[in-house]
Amino acid sequence: MPEGARPVILSLERMRAVRGLYPDENTMVVEAGAILADVQDAAEAQGRLFPLSLASQGSARIGGLLATNAGGVNVLRYGNARDLCLGLEAVLPDGSIWHGLKRLRKDNTGYDLRNLLIGAEGPLGVLTAATLRLFPRPSAEGTALLAVTDPAAALALLALARDRIGDGISAFELIAAQGPLFLAETMPDVRLPFENPWPWTVLIDLGLAADGDPEAALTGLFEAALEQGLVSDGLIAQSEAQRAVFWAMRESIPLANRAVGAIASHDISLPLSQIPEFLEAAPQALAEIGAFRINAFGHLGDGNLHYNVFPQQGDTRDRWRDKKAAISRLVHDMVHAREGSISAEHGIGRLKTADLERYGDPAKLAAMRAIKDALDPYGIMNPGAVLHAAP
Amino acid sequence: MPEGARPVILSLERMRAVRGLYPDENTMVVEAGAILADVQDAAEAQGRLFPLSLASQGSARIGGLLATNAGGVNVLRYGNARDLCLGLEAVLPDGSIWHGLKRLRKDNTGYDLRNLLIGAEGPLGVLTAATLRLFPRPSAEGTALLAVTDPAAALALLALARDRIGDGISAFELIAAQGPLFLAETMPDVRLPFENPWPWTVLIDLGLAADGDPEAALTGLFEAALEQGLVSDGLIAQSEAQRAVFWAMRESIPLANRAVGAIASHDISLPLSQIPEFLEAAPQALAEIGAFRINAFGHLGDGNLHYNVFPQQGDTRDRWRDKKAAISRLVHDMVHAREGSISAEHGIGRLKTADLERYGDPAKLAAMRAIKDALDPYGIMNPGAVLHAAP
Repeated sequence: MPEGARPVILSLERMRAVRGLYPDENTMVVEAGAILADVQDAAEAQGRLFPLSLASQGSARIGGLLATNAGGVNVLRYGNARDLCLGLEAVLPDGSIWHGLKRLRKDNTGYDLRNLLIGAEGPLGVLTAATLRLFPRPSAEGTALLAVTDPAAALALLALARDRIGDGISAFELIAAQGPLFLAETMPDVRLPFENPWPWTVLIDLGLAADGDPEAALTGLFEAALEQGLVSDGLIAQSEAQRAVFWAMRESIPLANRAVGAIASHDISLPLSQIPEFLEAAPQALAEIGAFRINAFGHLGDGNLHYNVFPQQGDTRDRWRDKKAAISRLVHDMVHAREGSISAEHGIGRLKTADLERYGDPAKLAAMRAIKDALDPYGIMNPGAVLHAAP
Repeated sequence: MPEGARPVILSLERMRAVRGLYPDENTMVVEAGAILADVQDAAEAQGRLFPLSLASQGSARIGGLLATNAGGVNVLRYGNARDLCLGLEAVLPDGSIWHGLKRLRKDNTGYDLRNLLIGAEGPLGVLTAATLRLFPRPSAEGTALLAVTDPAAALALLALARDRIGDGISAFELIAAQGPLFLAETMPDVRLPFENPWPWTVLIDLGLAADGDPEAALTGLFEAALEQGLVSDGLIAQSEAQRAVFWAMRESIPLANRAVGAIASHDISLPLSQIPEFLEAAPQALAEIGAFRINAFGHLGDGNLHYNVFPQQGDTRDRWRDKKAAISRLVHDMVHAREGSISAEHGIGRLKTADLERYGDPAKLAAMRAIKDALDPYGIMNPGAVLHAAP
C-alpha cells in the first residue's frame, strides 16, 4: 500500500441484483453481493439448478465464492466455483473496468483473465458481477449411506458407481465414525441413521434425468458392491424426509467439530490413489506427538478431506496449544510428500501465507509476484493476502 | 525480442512420453509432444476415456492443444481442453521450470497459473507436460440424426434432450443443408444418410453408463420432439457401422468446404439464445455484399458455429478476394453486437491480432499486456502471437 494511505474495507453487499436470467441458455448474470441461496432460488424459480452448494450458502456471496474458488458438496459432478462461471465484470487495480460478462461456453480470445481473478482472493481486482452456468434440475434424486470396509473400498465403490451410473453422482462424501460420535456427544438432537456408527461410511447422492430411477440405481450399486466385498451395510433413503436426515447428519459434522474444539484443522487434497495410505499413516505419525482423536471426512470424490485433530475425551485443546504448529506441520508435510495440496478449497488468505511460501513451487510464486506487481503496482488490493506484503 | 536476437523454433515432438497413468484416480501425466490419438489409445488400454476429440487428432499434440485451449465435438459434455487439464509443467520465460503436475481436483493455493498458460498460445511459457483428466468409458453409445424445423427448434430439442437424458449427451452438432450438398458436389463417395438433405439437421451422440439404453433414450426423445413439432424426420443408428456413417458425414464437411473453397471462414460463438436470430439476419446482411452460399455448422450445444461464406456454383472465390475483409468485418460486427466471440475455439494466433484489438475489451487487453511484460520482459516467447509485438 502506498505510504500514508489508509486501509479501506469495501462492501459490495448492496450490489446484489440479478441482472439477467436466461433459462434457454442455462446462464445467469448476477452482481457480486448476491447471496448464494438467493441465486439458487432465482435459478430454481426458472426450473434451473445453480449447483454450488455449501453449508454457508445462506450468507456467502457470489463475489467471495468466486474470489476464493469455493468448493462444496457438488464439485464431483459440477466442478468448483471457477467451473460454474463463464464471465466476469471486475474493477482492476488501475481503476479500469473489465467488461467480461460473456455468456459463452467457448471464447478463445486472449489470456484467461477470468480464471486468473477467480481464486486469487482479491489482490488482482474487485469482482463486481459474474455470468454463472445453470443446469437442468435433476428429475429424480436419491441418497444412500453405505458402510464401506475401509477408505480403499470407498474409492473402489466410487469407481463402481461411476461405471454403473455415470455422471449422475452429485456427491460422494466420506464420513469417519468420529463424526457421528462427536454428534452423539455434542448434538444429541441430530438423528444418526446407523445406531452404532461404522468405521467408514459413504454418503452418495444421485441426481438423474427423467429417464432415471435413483432408488433402483442405488439398490443395484449396493448389491454389486456387496458382492465385491466393498460394503457391509447400507441405507437407501425411502423418502425426501429420509434424504434430509442423511444430509443433516453430514452437514452437522462441522458444527459438532466446532463444539468439541479442534486442536488443528486441515483442508487437504490428495491424489485419489494416495488417500488410503495417508489415512493409515497420518494417525500413526500423529500418535508420536500425543494421543488425539481424529475426524477425517469430506469430499472423497474430489480427493478433498477435512483432516481435523482433537483432544481425547476429558482432555482440553488448551493443553496442546504449543503443539498445534507441529501437528499442522506434520500433516502438511505428509500431504506435500504425497503431491497433495495444503489448501484444497479454503484458500490461503492471511493465515496460510507462510505455508504457501514453504510448500509452493518457487517458479509459480515468482510468477505470481510478477503478476501482482504488474497489475497492482501500488499494492492497493487486499494487501497481505496470499502473498506476503512487500517489505 | 532483444535486438540482435535470432528467432528459434522449438520442437517438442520427441517429448511424447506417458509419464504415468492412474486409472484408479482417472488421471494421466503426458509430455507435451504426445499426439492426441496416442493419448486416447493409452487411456483406452486402461479402460478409460480421454474425451478431447477433433478431426486433427492424428497429428495434434497435447502441448498445442492446451496452448490453444482446443475444443472439438465433446465440449458440451466434457468441456474444452482447459477443463481436461489438472496440472502443468512449463518452462517460464525467465528459464525457471514450474513443477505443477498436480493430480488434484481441488487446489486453492495461489493464482491460477495453469489456466493462464492454457489458451495463451505460447507467449507466457513453454508447456512441457500436463496432467490430464480421464473418465469412465461410456458403456453404451448411440447416435441419431434428427431433422429439425429450424435453429430455434434445434435449441428446444437440446433443452428437451438435457431434461430427459441429462449429462449423457456427448455431442450436439448442427448441420445445414449446405454441408451435405457440398459433400454431394465434391466428395460423392461419402454416404449421405438422408437422400435429400433437410434444411437443418442435428447430430446427437449419447454415451451412457451401464444402466442406460441409448437407443431407447433416442427413440423416446424423437417421439417427444415429434409431439412438440420440433422434428420432421429422424434416423437412429442401429449399429456401430451406421454410427460411423453418420459421423463420417459430419467429419467430412470441413473437407468438402475446403474442396469448394471458402471466401471467408469464421469460428464464432454466441449466447445460445442469440443463435436463431443471427442465423436469420447474417445471410440477409451478406446478400447486400453479393450472392453467396453459406455453410453454418458446428457445435451448437456450445454456441459455437463455423460460419463459412462460399461463392455460388459456377462462380469463383478469386472474384471476391477484395470483398473478403468486408465479409469478415460484417460477420464479426454482427457477432460482437450480440455479445459473441470472434474466436470460439481456434484462438488468435497471428491472423486475428487486429480483430482482438478491435473487439477485445480495453481493460482486459491492458491487463494482458502488463502480464506479458511482467513474465516475459524481453518478449522472447512466441513474439507477435495474440498481442501485437511491441513496436
